[in-house]
Amino acid sequence: MTSQITLSLDAMGGDHGPSVVVPAALQALERHPHLHLVLVGQEETLREHLQAGNQGDSGRLSIRHCTQVVAMDEPPSHALRSKKDSSMRVALEMVKTGEADGSVSAGNTGALMATARYLLKTLPGIDRPAIMSTIPTLGGATHMLDLGANVDCTGEHLFQFGVMGAVAAEAVHGLERPRVGLLNIGEEEIKGNEQVKHAAELLLESEEIHYAGYIEGDGIYKGEADVVVCDGFVGNVALKTSEGVATLISEYMRMEFRRNLLSKIAGVVALPVLRALRRRIDPRQYNGASLLGLRGVALKSHGSADSFAFGRAIDTAVREAEQGVPDLINARIERLLGAKEGA
Amino acid sequence: MTSQITLSLDAMGGDHGPSVVVPAALQALERHPHLHLVLVGQEETLREHLQAGNQGDSGRLSIRHCTQVVAMDEPPSHALRSKKDSSMRVALEMVKTGEADGSVSAGNTGALMATARYLLKTLPGIDRPAIMSTIPTLGGATHMLDLGANVDCTGEHLFQFGVMGAVAAEAVHGLERPRVGLLNIGEEEIKGNEQVKHAAELLLESEEIHYAGYIEGDGIYKGEADVVVCDGFVGNVALKTSEGVATLISEYMRMEFRRNLLSKIAGVVALPVLRALRRRIDPRQYNGASLLGLRGVALKSHGSADSFAFGRAIDTAVREAEQGVPDLINARIERLLGAKEGA
Repeated sequence: MTSQITLSLDAMGGDHGPSVVVPAALQALERHPHLHLVLVGQEETLREHLQAGNQGDSGRLSIRHCTQVVAMDEPPSHALRSKKDSSMRVALEMVKTGEADGSVSAGNTGALMATARYLLKTLPGIDRPAIMSTIPTLGGATHMLDLGANVDCTGEHLFQFGVMGAVAAEAVHGLERPRVGLLNIGEEEIKGNEQVKHAAELLLESEEIHYAGYIEGDGIYKGEADVVVCDGFVGNVALKTSEGVATLISEYMRMEFRRNLLSKIAGVVALPVLRALRRRIDPRQYNGASLLGLRGVALKSHGSADSFAFGRAIDTAVREAEQGVPDLINARIERLLGAKEGA
Repeated sequence: MTSQITLSLDAMGGDHGPSVVVPAALQALERHPHLHLVLVGQEETLREHLQAGNQGDSGRLSIRHCTQVVAMDEPPSHALRSKKDSSMRVALEMVKTGEADGSVSAGNTGALMATARYLLKTLPGIDRPAIMSTIPTLGGATHMLDLGANVDCTGEHLFQFGVMGAVAAEAVHGLERPRVGLLNIGEEEIKGNEQVKHAAELLLESEEIHYAGYIEGDGIYKGEADVVVCDGFVGNVALKTSEGVATLISEYMRMEFRRNLLSKIAGVVALPVLRALRRRIDPRQYNGASLLGLRGVALKSHGSADSFAFGRAIDTAVREAEQGVPDLINARIERLLGAKEGA
């Protein structure tokens, strides 16, 4: 794909604002020769950050001034009502008007989802947008959704998540007929709740979906499915729990290697290996959650992302925009609804 | 505590049956001088295993013959209906009749919970029994429930789990006023579902409980609460996901240390440290989930447990029986109901 892609970046969002977004933008322009970026935020601040850094190919970088910033702990309803000139909102408005092909923000998830939903609207046939992220597995990676946008989901919602996830995994990650699994628990008779059982029926019926059946929590990391579907409560708990375990093990490792002189020497000898290990489990690689089900590309970067991590979110937004993921989801859903009516 | 404790062991349950349970029993008798154990299962098979091993202080070990075994994949309803002389059931019946002070089984969770509930009955004031396990944290350990017995829970159920978890953490693990946290997700406005919010109100109101507020998935491993309460679907996913992450990281570690000659040498040098690390994250240490809310002590060992791990479940059963956890839960619930009526 060599067509020009323009992304709007919420340059004020996240814990670090422009000090992360500006360098991430400059680096992304070097990686993607057909990319144009618009930094949305307070112009003066952004100019200062640009002057501090290497301005790079400034012909592909512009600034859209706005006066407000959505705080990281700001309630979504408040952001929607009284932050009409926020960097988050203006960046999303550019997607709505077609000035940008997609948007990336490290701002607070609730406000971002609410604003994106309000401005971009949900695709026809999709009841609720969902948040999808990439998760490392033994053999590669899987894609999990929803990660927190919807706490209570019907079977129909879960089914739609499966469709959206499959389309995105195909388009962005080049998977053919990705295996869609439903996250469930393993106990006989108490196997799953009604919603999951209903979603399983819908996924089984649909020929458009390569349904891989139920998978359990440990199956996510074994790579038993390419797309893992769950409600936002379960998905968010699973994701945060995973982070917690990884942090705990890293901390234990640090403690053990610092225990005494011998273990410290072992730590020095093992340093290249430990660094390689750290790179493998580095969550920054997987930064960038897709807001799927909207009439536009919107990516959420982790609030604490550094410029490397923010860049990963930009990369995903580029791919989603190049492939036209919202249109692909729309087409798939239309086909599914057509098949249903035809049946 | 020096009073005699008798436990009945489902000697045929789990993936390995008597080849794990018999040695675990013999070792437990050595650790606990006041413990009596009853091996429940096919007498001839058990005698063979006892002869193969060191019989130890056989005065404190006896056999209760029975003819059936519940299969690991057997539906609970089938086990209840047609396995009335199973090792799992007979072991639980001994708790019911008072012949044993508690029971341990590595048999299938669904069948064990259903049989325990049917035979032992739920304590008054408790709507649903729950499964609790100990989880390692940065500073020590926490106790999490429910881990899979109840897929749909009301706020009232979650509140009762909090009470049961607090009592068990106090009695068995010696914690004073354990901090009870509710597992939740962090997004503003979409913060939690109705059940969790209702449970939060009930826990806040109750002076009996040291309520620590909401905690997120990563907070479990940071040790933000001593008791973590959630519904069985979420708890089971969180637990299995944690296992998945730990396995993934171990596997990555193995791969990195085997990459080339230099990394292999580093692995040899770091071996004592890596072994210490493995001990720290060894799930066998935490084996043994408590079935709480029943009129008797019942422990579930992991189906694949080895004799060390099964022994940990026996140790927990000993402590629960010594402390009389079911009576303590009963007393606490009565006090709470009394306080409510008095209010």
